[in-house]
Amino acid sequence: MLTKTPHLFDDATQVTAGDSCWQGRTSEDYWAFVGPFGGATAATILRALLDHPQRAGDPLSLTVNFCAPVAPGTFDLDVRLVKANRSTQHWSVEMTQDGGEVATFATAVFAARRPSWSNQPAEFPGATAFEQTLPYAKISIPWVKQYDFRFVEGEPEINATPRVEPASAYSKLWIGDRVARKIDALSLMAMSDAFFGRIFHVKAELVPFGTVSLTTYFHADAEDLAAEDVSRVLAVADANIFHKSYGDQTGKLWSPDGRLLATTTQITYFKA
Amino acid sequence: MLTKTPHLFDDATQVTAGDSCWQGRTSEDYWAFVGPFGGATAATILRALLDHPQRAGDPLSLTVNFCAPVAPGTFDLDVRLVKANRSTQHWSVEMTQDGGEVATFATAVFAARRPSWSNQPAEFPGATAFEQTLPYAKISIPWVKQYDFRFVEGEPEINATPRVEPASAYSKLWIGDRVARKIDALSLMAMSDAFFGRIFHVKAELVPFGTVSLTTYFHADAEDLAAEDVSRVLAVADANIFHKSYGDQTGKLWSPDGRLLATTTQITYFKA
Repeated sequence: MLTKTPHLFDDATQVTAGDSCWQGRTSEDYWAFVGPFGGATAATILRALLDHPQRAGDPLSLTVNFCAPVAPGTFDLDVRLVKANRSTQHWSVEMTQDGGEVATFATAVFAARRPSWSNQPAEFPGATAFEQTLPYAKISIPWVKQYDFRFVEGEPEINATPRVEPASAYSKLWIGDRVARKIDALSLMAMSDAFFGRIFHVKAELVPFGTVSLTTYFHADAEDLAAEDVSRVLAVADANIFHKSYGDQTGKLWSPDGRLLATTTQITYFKA
Repeated sequence: MLTKTPHLFDDATQVTAGDSCWQGRTSEDYWAFVGPFGGATAATILRALLDHPQRAGDPLSLTVNFCAPVAPGTFDLDVRLVKANRSTQHWSVEMTQDGGEVATFATAVFAARRPSWSNQPAEFPGATAFEQTLPYAKISIPWVKQYDFRFVEGEPEINATPRVEPASAYSKLWIGDRVARKIDALSLMAMSDAFFGRIFHVKAELVPFGTVSLTTYFHADAEDLAAEDVSRVLAVADANIFHKSYGDQTGKLWSPDGRLLATTTQITYFKA
């Protein structure tokens, strides 16, 4: 039995420690079309790693391969420390249901980050202030309602008739939890999958769509995030290509004052 | 005993089929500083998957986590089909040496790509013709000598005195095998790791550096690549951030006539 925690997000990504096998259950609050919101699944996997007694350092990268839709209900997480070095750890996590069928397969790197020379070549895109940007309220599926999306640029237009000429794949938006929650590695992980499918933007149409593989890099450790002390990010997403049923997405998550917190990329399936 | 194949790259990435356990050995021809060139290791892993009797479809994504330096000599590849669906396959590959120590850990997705609506929002950067661009011959370590690098923009300058102001992290260059070889998924995989460390560019200095995790997405299948019939790519690379001993790199590999063949990203360690 899982206990109710203060924030729905923490409830949705809750896990129960086992030895190498951990347990969790999907959340109706973060449900998407045919399974839970992929970002919640990814954050759940990250939480199991963060809570693991052998974990050392902060998340540096997480790759999640979505092998099959996650069914509503319980799942097992087989957590394995593949290799530990002096300052890095390599982990694998297999999410299974129904006694062994793999739904999600992830690899992660954790690192004890040391002080170093710093430089941020990426340019902060800037945006109208969060308070001056209108909330997006056109999609009412459960997981979307958990976030406060405010589009500065590239709000999706879903039309009755599909576009002939593709629209831009670029979006710039504020993302925060609907019920404010301080940004940590868990919410960065989830938010890195919280962009709407780029294919919806370019086609102005909802088509069958799913993330196949998602990779997120963390550019701030727990200490950095605690110092930032923010509850929303300025996020940008774009796509490079749609070809033979697969497309990609790239994204960046910034702190409101221009610090790059995470970068992310995914390869997606679509039918169009 | 491995047989000698026509191209050094094919020799360097050779594997011998087992059941779930495959064997290979590192190549002196593709040696880097403290281990084999990571791109050769990644291509070797991809070759084991491509040669696997259960493999269906074309590579869509490959993520390689470099857990420890690969020692010179033989290695085992533990190849596992984690999940197969109607049109996709999820694989994991563990490279071990010395009876079990994990050196490299990879996950891959293969897909049977179906015809679909196509669009390429990414803009081809263009470049001076390969023939009009000077070969780069300033670094003579083994793996670099296997490639014909021709910088159009952002050739690295390694100075005796480090820069005070960081230089650009952006490079645009032609990459081909030194002995011409038709571009396939294997060479795309290797070339996606063939950029010089971005930290060398921005600092104008060789500092301790290594790729921690590398993800490459393939945007062309075997049929597309056969139709392209090219032996070099126009490649661009950039970085977003260097912070607390880790930095990132993003890259794109284009066919000479402007088709996006692969995108890639990596998180790297540096000491500076």
